[in-house]
Formats: sequence, C-alpha cells, structure tokens
Amino acid sequence: MPLYFITGNAGKLREVQAVMPDVEQLDIDLDEVQSLDPQRVIAHKLDEAARRHDGEFIVEDTSLAIDCLGGLPGPFIKWFGQALEWKGLGELVQRYNNHTAVARTTIGYRDAAGHVQFFVDELAGRIVMPQGDQGFGWDPIFVPEGHTQTFAELGPAIKNELSMRRRATEQLKEAIQKQ
Amino acid sequence: MPLYFITGNAGKLREVQAVMPDVEQLDIDLDEVQSLDPQRVIAHKLDEAARRHDGEFIVEDTSLAIDCLGGLPGPFIKWFGQALEWKGLGELVQRYNNHTAVARTTIGYRDAAGHVQFFVDELAGRIVMPQGDQGFGWDPIFVPEGHTQTFAELGPAIKNELSMRRRATEQLKEAIQKQ
Repeated sequence: MPLYFITGNAGKLREVQAVMPDVEQLDIDLDEVQSLDPQRVIAHKLDEAARRHDGEFIVEDTSLAIDCLGGLPGPFIKWFGQALEWKGLGELVQRYNNHTAVARTTIGYRDAAGHVQFFVDELAGRIVMPQGDQGFGWDPIFVPEGHTQTFAELGPAIKNELSMRRRATEQLKEAIQKQ
Repeated sequence: MPLYFITGNAGKLREVQAVMPDVEQLDIDLDEVQSLDPQRVIAHKLDEAARRHDGEFIVEDTSLAIDCLGGLPGPFIKWFGQALEWKGLGELVQRYNNHTAVARTTIGYRDAAGHVQFFVDELAGRIVMPQGDQGFGWDPIFVPEGHTQTFAELGPAIKNELSMRRRATEQLKEAIQKQ
C-alpha cells in the first residue's frame, strides 16, 4: 500500500524523500483548520484525506514559534509570509531585542487501519533579515543555533544535517520499520 | 423558521440582537479554515452548520487588517489576542510609524434553501496601547477615525453608532425584510 505525503511543497517533498525515498506525493487541497496546535491541524487533514483516498498518509506541519511574538506565527507561518513577505517578518522581529525562535516539525502518520501517530522534532535558532538563496520558505531568515548563517546560506547538505524535518522523518521511518 | 447566529461570543450576540432582536444564539463549535479571506472562512462554517442543524444561519467575522503588518492579523485576530494579548499587539504596532488599521465585519447569511449572501462593512481607525474597560475583544486598542478614544472608552452607545458590525447587520436585516 502506498504511503502518501500530502503536500504541494516541492521543497518539503524533497527533504522527506531524502529519508524515505518510497514516499509518494499526493497534491490535493485539504482544509487547514485554524489552531495554534499543529496536531489538531494535521489530524483534521488526515481525516479528510482518508475520506477521499485509499492508502496510508503523512501530513507535515512546520511551525515557526517566535519568542518576541508570543509564539506566533506558529502554524500560521504561511500567512505571515504571504502578508509580510520574509523580509517584512525579518524586519518585524528586528524591532524587538529578542530574536529567538523555535522551528518545530510535526509529522502525522495515519496507517491503513486509521490509527494516527505524531512525530515531533524541533530546532532552536534566531530570526534575521533575509540572507542566501538556497532552500525554500523562511530558510533565508532562520539561523540555527550554533551557526552564523541562515538555512538559505548553509545549503541543503548542512540544512538536512541540522533539520528538525529530517529528524521527525527519521522517527517516522523507524516507527514504520518496527511495525 | 428560526434565524440562528452561530457564535460563542456574548458581545457579538448583544450587538447583533440590538439590530435584530429575534436572532437566536446557536453556540456550536465549528471548524474555522485558515484563510485570509473571511468569506471563505464563513462559507465553510455555514455549510457545516447546515449539515448539523435545520434553520437559517448567520456567521460573522470581524477581521482587523493592520496596515504596517501587511493586513494581518485579518481573520486570525483571535490567535493574535491569545498569543500576544491586546497589550502585546498594541505594543507591536507602536514599534512602527504607521498605526492605521481597518476593522471589517463580514456577515454570511444562509437561507433555508441553502443560498448564501454576504454583507460587508468596514471602519477605519488606528491601533493604540490598551485604554478603557468597556466592550470586548480588541475594543481597548482600536480608536475609530475621527475620534481620540478607543471603543472601550467610548462605550456601547457610541460604539454601536459607529460600528461596522451594526451596519453590516442592518444590511442583512434589510435584505431579509425585502425577501
């Protein structure tokens, strides 16, 4: 039975397939409910996917919790990018003294029996003005802790080494192999 | 047939009933989809309500579009309040030179035949640090254009006179009376 990764994001697909090459993309448009809790957003999408397709599914959320914004944007990061652009979000954070943030990947996996498991991993860092042109999304404004360059400057090999998305995907892989 | 206003917010209920006293509250929890477009959020809730109840329904969204934030929080205002509190949002905006905002009420009305109409009204103003203790929600940080006090200082009579929510409700009332 195929394991579908429900996403329209080529960058996320690439990073998940680097760990699990057999994962297939399923690019369908599912409702995302408003919540600060990624697991609630993911669970809703997994349910909707299972009503429309057969198979096993994964849905991924990477939230960016910025400390000076009380944990926003969290799961709403996409809309911040759309409204402010990454440059605008970088500028907003520079208006505060505290630039720290946590990038948190949550992967929800729904097996063929309808059982759902979550895998979570996170990476601390800070928000800067955009630098670099590799990666995707907010990679240009996120500097991982212990580094001086953004994900977009560090490039895919180093990003993957550090990445909360890679580690959450490895947890998933391990759980599936144990089944 | 009853006209249900789907809300858990006593303040919004009071303001809508000031114009349409016969409206009944229906306090059920419906999914809110993530979107910067209030009409999409509302349409989804109206569909879900109609699947679960008989009657005619109204769903209201009041978005706060802050200019220095590229129109955020928009329909996500509730989560900004939760994460930053109104004081934190007031502070955030004071870090910019431009404090202007638009409060926009959208009311979606679904009649018994399933036809949906939208009524929209808006009010310009600016965001300040919290002042006053009347009203609800972000009333303490919103000063309507042409005034020097917040909705929370002006009180319910003046708020209702100015209110985008009252005017949108009157549009709805007029449309229903013409039917």
